[in-house]
Amino acid sequence: MSRATAQKDAAMKIPKKQDFPVGEIRRFLEPGPVVLVSSAWRRNTNIMTMGWHTVLEFSPSLVGCLISSGNHSHEMVRRSRECVINVPSVDLATTVADIGNCSGATIDKFQKFKLTKADATNVKAPLIAECHANLECRLVEFLKRYDFFIFEVVKAHAPAAPKYPKTIHYRGEGIFMVAGGSLNLRRRSGPKCCDRWPRWAKSRLYQSVL
Amino acid sequence: MSRATAQKDAAMKIPKKQDFPVGEIRRFLEPGPVVLVSSAWRRNTNIMTMGWHTVLEFSPSLVGCLISSGNHSHEMVRRSRECVINVPSVDLATTVADIGNCSGATIDKFQKFKLTKADATNVKAPLIAECHANLECRLVEFLKRYDFFIFEVVKAHAPAAPKYPKTIHYRGEGIFMVAGGSLNLRRRSGPKCCDRWPRWAKSRLYQSVL
Repeated sequence: MSRATAQKDAAMKIPKKQDFPVGEIRRFLEPGPVVLVSSAWRRNTNIMTMGWHTVLEFSPSLVGCLISSGNHSHEMVRRSRECVINVPSVDLATTVADIGNCSGATIDKFQKFKLTKADATNVKAPLIAECHANLECRLVEFLKRYDFFIFEVVKAHAPAAPKYPKTIHYRGEGIFMVAGGSLNLRRRSGPKCCDRWPRWAKSRLYQSVL
Repeated sequence: MSRATAQKDAAMKIPKKQDFPVGEIRRFLEPGPVVLVSSAWRRNTNIMTMGWHTVLEFSPSLVGCLISSGNHSHEMVRRSRECVINVPSVDLATTVADIGNCSGATIDKFQKFKLTKADATNVKAPLIAECHANLECRLVEFLKRYDFFIFEVVKAHAPAAPKYPKTIHYRGEGIFMVAGGSLNLRRRSGPKCCDRWPRWAKSRLYQSVL
């Protein structure tokens, strides 16, 4: 098998997943990986590469991200009020870069990049089966001034292993950082570090959002 | 020199910095590192460990982050409308974890952790000299519903080398990911990947924010 074929096969591997607690999705998003946002509107689907996002709350599980009105996905996400945030690992790096360099206005990206659509449980947008984790999201609020979308993660899918996928992180200028090893500082972490925001803040936010 | 002393000396090293273009600070923040937020209000200063942030715009250079009202820094940042986002590298990992596990309500963290205050150019909050990069921030908007602060980076300081510091990224449960190697996909990156949002979007936002 040629090296190119081996690389392609690795990229196309589909991990077997199980339900993952939505309140713990920080594990995938907080380290700041580049993600793939999949969306559906009417008969079309699309995928965009996205690097500007942050966790906002544990429960409800809130994520904020910037999807510029210049992106084809912007209107699809706004109209459908849904999307899936897919977390790719380094096997998909070239695909992630290529997806970020073409527009869904003229291309069916699932077809072009030979990615597999899987049915989501709670949203119409498709999961990208090849990605390590898939987070089904419903729009909670859109801040037009910043093109900033606040989503609630309503369902999450991830494989049992590896616990920490080798994610890729964008540094600009075409350079990605690949996730390195783990540093265990658990002994130094009291409850504040494992769960840095107090419970009352969670419940207050829960009340105000839902 | 004992190993402990050598480690302490390494942690206390102060990099020599120069002005860094504020429109390019994505290099430090977009990969998602844990950062230290320093603030000043009246005669007090404080430092908090923060992992929930995202770049929002190139020009003006906007950054959004969550500082819960449960954090001592929350009121200091809201009242002063300023802060410094300091980007530590792995040398400071244990200090970063320890800072996240105590409260500025009862502790002078600069003193306790033997960190060096340096004068900022445009804000009253101090830079943490030991950190790799320091981003002076002014508050643009505070979204109370989410405890979400939107800052403009008005001045940035970083050393000429290394170009990419070995940052640490929080995975929850006391586990940090250490930034790994670089993957150069520049050949695949057209202008859209290096600068993924169109110029008109920038200028539109610039008009609406300022």
